[in-house]
Amino acid sequence: MKTHTEYLTFNTRNHREYINITDKVAGAVRKSGVAEGMVLVSAMHITAGVWVNDAEEGLLADIDEWLERLAPYSDYRHHRTGEDNGDAHLKSLLVHHEVILPITKGALDLGPWQQVYYAEFDGQRRKRVIIKVMGE
Amino acid sequence: MKTHTEYLTFNTRNHREYINITDKVAGAVRKSGVAEGMVLVSAMHITAGVWVNDAEEGLLADIDEWLERLAPYSDYRHHRTGEDNGDAHLKSLLVHHEVILPITKGALDLGPWQQVYYAEFDGQRRKRVIIKVMGE
Amino acid sequence: MKTHTEYLTFNTRNHREYINITDKVAGAVRKSGVAEGMVLVSAMHITAGVWVNDAEEGLLADIDEWLERLAPYSDYRHHRTGEDNGDAHLKSLLVHHEVILPITKGALDLGPWQQVYYAEFDGQRRKRVIIKVMGE
Repeated sequence: MKTHTEYLTFNTRNHREYINITDKVAGAVRKSGVAEGMVLVSAMHITAGVWVNDAEEGLLADIDEWLERLAPYSDYRHHRTGEDNGDAHLKSLLVHHEVILPITKGALDLGPWQQVYYAEFDGQRRKRVIIKVMGE
Repeated sequence: MKTHTEYLTFNTRNHREYINITDKVAGAVRKSGVAEGMVLVSAMHITAGVWVNDAEEGLLADIDEWLERLAPYSDYRHHRTGEDNGDAHLKSLLVHHEVILPITKGALDLGPWQQVYYAEFDGQRRKRVIIKVMGE
Repeated sequence: MKTHTEYLTFNTRNHREYINITDKVAGAVRKSGVAEGMVLVSAMHITAGVWVNDAEEGLLADIDEWLERLAPYSDYRHHRTGEDNGDAHLKSLLVHHEVILPITKGALDLGPWQQVYYAEFDGQRRKRVIIKVMGE
């Protein structure tokens, strides 16, 4: 059994930002030498997410608007702690903080339009994602 | 370590459809010969989902209505590409495109009511699901 | 390859309850002897969830209120079966029933604020969570 671990670091220019990390994940899979297995891609923060969907700018704007509708910036109890990012926690819960992807014949086994995204909901500070490959 | 991979193909009659694939996943686990491990069940498309919940027709209709309320068919920016399935992308994000299930003593280790569903949000065309078993 | 399996049992006092199980998961990882791998934490019921987020009481109340807004207690088709927990099924779909966490150097590899929660949406009865560790 082989494992391989990498960490990605982000410090986005915008408060919310959606970054295509498919190439980084594919690179980690290559470096791992794993032919058959799985790769976990997981945000290490509670105000960020990771998802698999289309790399299409219009859709990304749709998703951003939709998330703001379902989990709006608002006055939350959480803000009594001095934070003002309650909405980012809810957005993270909604889209989830991790995905796990199949590896077949040494490469990510994704469908034709599947791309891996890091979703930053409370940026402009240092955030991390862990990539952990496991297989043989 | 053992791995085993299968692909399911769907071409649903309806635009949206919810298909119980528990037996297919259980069959893949049996074929794998894995006694202890995990199985990933993942849609290979960005307008479909996979979830674990109850096999009850009333509930499936409730879920369908609820998803249409939270992620309605509407006029999305994504449609400028010529597509009209923006809602299917959002529904996929909401329910997620994959689950990972435990295998214990050679079988799926699910609770009494847990069933695995493929959720088609933009059907009437060929779609695929990957099943990847890993363990020993 | 090593695997290790534990089951947690809950019987909550309240109908809805959010329980921090990070220490239980960390304990299972320690017992497993796995240095590099992954741990699956999965509710075995269809009216419960597992998530990773902040251990902050105000936020937990915000999440509870938000889930009730997006997936309210209401009159669902599912209730024709004699059940009255349709909302709990939808809440479970929304937050998901499982997470998979990375293990590095023999410990959970979580970010500074990441805590694992069991989310009970239909409690006051016996429910279970499976913890399955896999790695080497």
